[in-house]
Order: sequence, then structure tokens, then C-alpha cells
Amino acid sequence: MARLALARGCCQKPVNAMIPVGMSEYSIGVDLGGTNLRAAAIDRSGKMLDKISGSTKFEEGRDAVLSDIVSAISALRERCGEAALAGIGVGVPGFIRIREGFITGSNNLPYLENFPVRDEISRRLGARVILENDANAAALGEKWIGAGQDVDDLVLLTLGTGIGGGIISCGRILRGAVGMAGEFGHVTVVPNGNPCGCGNRGCLEKHASATAVTAMARLMQLGEELSARDVSELARQDTKEGEKAREIWRIVGESLGIALATAINTFNFPLYLLSGGMLPAWEFFAPEMMRTVERRSFTYRATKTETRIAKATLGNEAGLYGAAYLPWAG
Amino acid sequence: MARLALARGCCQKPVNAMIPVGMSEYSIGVDLGGTNLRAAAIDRSGKMLDKISGSTKFEEGRDAVLSDIVSAISALRERCGEAALAGIGVGVPGFIRIREGFITGSNNLPYLENFPVRDEISRRLGARVILENDANAAALGEKWIGAGQDVDDLVLLTLGTGIGGGIISCGRILRGAVGMAGEFGHVTVVPNGNPCGCGNRGCLEKHASATAVTAMARLMQLGEELSARDVSELARQDTKEGEKAREIWRIVGESLGIALATAINTFNFPLYLLSGGMLPAWEFFAPEMMRTVERRSFTYRATKTETRIAKATLGNEAGLYGAAYLPWAG
Repeated sequence: MARLALARGCCQKPVNAMIPVGMSEYSIGVDLGGTNLRAAAIDRSGKMLDKISGSTKFEEGRDAVLSDIVSAISALRERCGEAALAGIGVGVPGFIRIREGFITGSNNLPYLENFPVRDEISRRLGARVILENDANAAALGEKWIGAGQDVDDLVLLTLGTGIGGGIISCGRILRGAVGMAGEFGHVTVVPNGNPCGCGNRGCLEKHASATAVTAMARLMQLGEELSARDVSELARQDTKEGEKAREIWRIVGESLGIALATAINTFNFPLYLLSGGMLPAWEFFAPEMMRTVERRSFTYRATKTETRIAKATLGNEAGLYGAAYLPWAG
Repeated sequence: MARLALARGCCQKPVNAMIPVGMSEYSIGVDLGGTNLRAAAIDRSGKMLDKISGSTKFEEGRDAVLSDIVSAISALRERCGEAALAGIGVGVPGFIRIREGFITGSNNLPYLENFPVRDEISRRLGARVILENDANAAALGEKWIGAGQDVDDLVLLTLGTGIGGGIISCGRILRGAVGMAGEFGHVTVVPNGNPCGCGNRGCLEKHASATAVTAMARLMQLGEELSARDVSELARQDTKEGEKAREIWRIVGESLGIALATAINTFNFPLYLLSGGMLPAWEFFAPEMMRTVERRSFTYRATKTETRIAKATLGNEAGLYGAAYLPWAG
């Protein structure tokens, strides 16, 4: 726990005096990212009571990561009181097998693959734990207290180094048979497009993630290691480089538009949310994305007043809120 | 009713004597196609008690079509007894607005568009009617007593002159916000592919329907108006024409494979069913379809023993059974 620091909190002590019994139910959510671990105690109204965050050194191996998770949860449980704890939810990147409670495919967490992650955390804590894909958790968080509060059905795409997805149907996470639903990052948007580690070609995340932006910038000789933010800055310039940068964002927008048009034709949901580190580039990719959706989805055109494509509002916290909501979500 | 003939029946008279009160609940389902109208009385166990089928002459206009529907339902209701009638479901092609009960986009039924079809049938019958998209009804039928009996979640693609789709999630039709969900025929499989009447390019149904097969046969100079069956016959030949025909089926299979891989990545459902007039060509398109799914969907490879892609089993009757099941489906 040395590297996990208290970020902010309001229930350090004495917890039980602060939160009257019977009104104080709270849940602990954990969001395990590729480089960091965050945990929070959140009450039923969505108020964050306490939060712990820190980096996780995956190179130290499975046991270190699991210990960090367990320590963070234990600390919050101690500070906020065991009696009022409704449950524990843990969001992790990668493909989840929900029944077995393990991660079966993940770029970031090879140590945790094909190991009973959920049951091991549960055993160490002596408490029930719900394991969930981080993008599914983020979608649930947005539904709970974010941009999706007013609907029961939504799709969330998380645009970062990769692209994740989560589906909320009838107010609940659509998990599929084993828990792998919502993998929009790997839907085909360019049949003969860029190869992907998943075995496919032309996956959405190979044409519209931050990693894809960096790769396109390299291919267009704009620079070797430009970030999505760098390419956004370039796109503002009235130069040849600016033109190339704008073309990159046009490709990102078109790719997202194809995936969104397919999602809209498939679900006819009222809300499609985008979140993640690419959101600051919205002004550059959104126009082509919207044009593509408009052109490619009859359903969108026929239901324009009933279909919204919008930015998520919880930012990085969505997964944390969603993980905490898991015990209440049923 | 002149052109609607009794096809088979077991409850002509005296119905009430045949079906004891309290055990005899049945429902009436109607399947309105582009050229024909079928209606059936089906009991809760899936037994077809009576059926009426005939052609519908759309050129006679809306009133004639509505009269045919109402007459068929009335005849079944009279023959099977009003007391035991649980409800009435009507499946129609096209985009449905479920709350308003009308068809908003349909190639086959221009007369019925943007008209309160459901309420008009209901008014004439003096009974509640449920209107549903025909592919959604077919998916429900397969779930009820067809190939999907053992699962709660499935996707159905209907491969005919067009391609329709239906989604069953948690045992119920996934309708979306207005009732247009499941339009897999218009998901993009080739971004710069064939133009579609829906405004998009490269829609699945422009690359994998019977109409697409005919068009490809023409483009490959195999013949002007070859049917999917003709192209299947050609594909058996060890000739240059045979090779071209096999290439057409390879394209059909690849297109279906891309759409199925996307559906599998999206839903992670246990079952994906194909039905419709193209099924007899299964042996020609299925190998490439399966290869494509395998290559393009990590989720499929990771859940192979838990994911089935199979032929639907109810054939043309799926929509009729599903329509009848609507009043029970909630």
C-alpha cells in the first residue's frame, strides 16, 4: 500500500458517527487501469465518501497487484465502516468471463489472465466481489450518475490508447453469454484495413484510437511519436501539416461513424456516448463522424430527435462510479 | 377474403367442444409478406390449430390489404372461439414504430406507411393488436419453438431478397427506442461497396441477399436474371462459370462473416441463426462465412464452445409463430 495515497476523503474517522446507520449504505468500487489503481467508497446517492489512488507496478507481478487491490479496499472498508458496506465491484481492462470471475484476454494485465482474480480478492477480503470489464463499468457509471441518467439503454465507447465499449440495456449491463459483450473496439470498419492484435484487420481501434492517430501521423510523416493531442494542435494550423492532421481526424471520424451507424442500426438506442482521452479532439473528428452516421444509418435519420450521440460526462471517474454501482445493479 | 383459402386446420367446428375451456388459450398470428398473407391460430404449446393463407394484392391499395388481414383474423377467431383468444400479433416487413403502431419505412408496403395500421386493425376487430417487424417476430418464433428454444439470447438474420434481423435478449425482442432495432441488413460490411436504397453504401443486404447474388451474376456475365438457386446450381459445375459462381458465394459468405463477427463482438450471445430463402445455398456460402467469423472475431475464438452459428428450423413459419407468440411475450 506504500504507493497508494489518499486523494480526498470525507469519512476518515469516525465514520459511523458521520453516517447514520440505515441511511449510510455505501459500496466500494475499484478501477484497475493499465498504469494505475483507484478505489472509492460511494454512497447510494452517488456521493463519493472516500477515494484512494495510486500507480500499480504490474512488473512486480500478480501478487503485488492483487495485494494493492485488497489493501485499497480494506482501507476504505475500515474507514467507512463494515456494517454499511453494500458490496464491492472491481473494473478491469480485458475480456472477462463473468461467471468464473477471471480475465481471459488483456493487453495490460497478462499476470492476471486465466487466474481466479475475483475469487482470490474475495478470499483475501472475506467478502463477495463482482468483477467487470472496465468499459462496461464505465457505461454503468454514466447510466447511474452521468450522461445516461435519463435513459435505460445506451452504448458507450471509450476512446483511448485502445477502444472499449459497454452496453446498457433495460438499465443493466448487457454482458452476453460469458461477459464479453460490447467489444466495439474490434468491430470491422475497414475490411482490408490495419492488422490488429486480435487477429482481425480493420478493427475500429486500429483506425480511431489514440494509438491509431499516432500511427497515421507517422505514416503521413508528421512525426514519429506524436500524441493525439499533438495531432490536434497540428490540425489547427493553416499549413500542409495541418491539412494532413485534419485528414487523420477525418479518418478517425469516418471510422467512428461507421461503427456508430452499425450500432444505431443494431440497437436503435436513444443514446451513444463517447468518453476517454480522445474526447478533447472532438471538434476535429466529430463533424465527419456525424456526417458518416447520417449517411450510413437510415435508422438515425428516421429517429433523429430520439437518438443522441454525445460526450460522456464522468470522464475518468465513470469506471470507478460504475464499479461501485455493480453491487446495486443486480 | 375470396383469395384467402383454408390451408389446414383442426378446429373448424365445433371449436369449443374440441378445446376445453381453461386449457385452450390460443393466439392469432399474422405474417404479412411482400406477396402473401398468412394467419394462424396457435395454442400456448405451439400447436397450430388453424391456418389461413393467400396472396395479397397490394396494388388494390391499403383498404384491401387491411380488409384481408381483418378477415383472416376474424375467420380464425370465429372458428377457434373468442373466449380462449389470448391476443393477436401481426408481423410486417419494414421499420416499425412500436408505440404508435405504424410502419415508417418499407419497400413492399408503401400503402401502409405512416398510417395507424395497428389501431385500424384493432378498431375493425374490436380487439387489441400487437404490430411487430417480421424479422423480430421470426426471431421470437425461433426462440419459442424453433432453433432458439434452449437460449435466452439470440440474433436471427433472415436472408431473402433483402436481409432482415431480429434480436432476442433475455428472452424478449430487443426493440430499441422506437422499435427499429435489429436492422442487420443495413450494417456496413464494405465501406465503399454497392449503393443501397437506404442511403448507405456497402450494406450487408447489397452483398449477401438473393438480390445481391443476382446482381453479381449479372456483373460476372453469368446471366441477366439468375436466381440464387441458379447460381447455386452453377457453383456445382467444374467449369469457368462454376468458378465464377463459387466466387459469388465466397463474397456472400465473407460479407455475412463480417456482419456476424461484428454481432458476436457486440453481443457475445450464444446463438446466431440464419433463415430465409438463401438457406439452401448454405453449403456454398457457409465455409467462407465461418472462416471470416473465425478470423475476425476474437470473441468467437475465445468462446467457440459457447457460440453457435446455425440454421433456423422453422423456415417460413417462424414469423407466423412469432407473431402469434407476441401477446404472450410481454
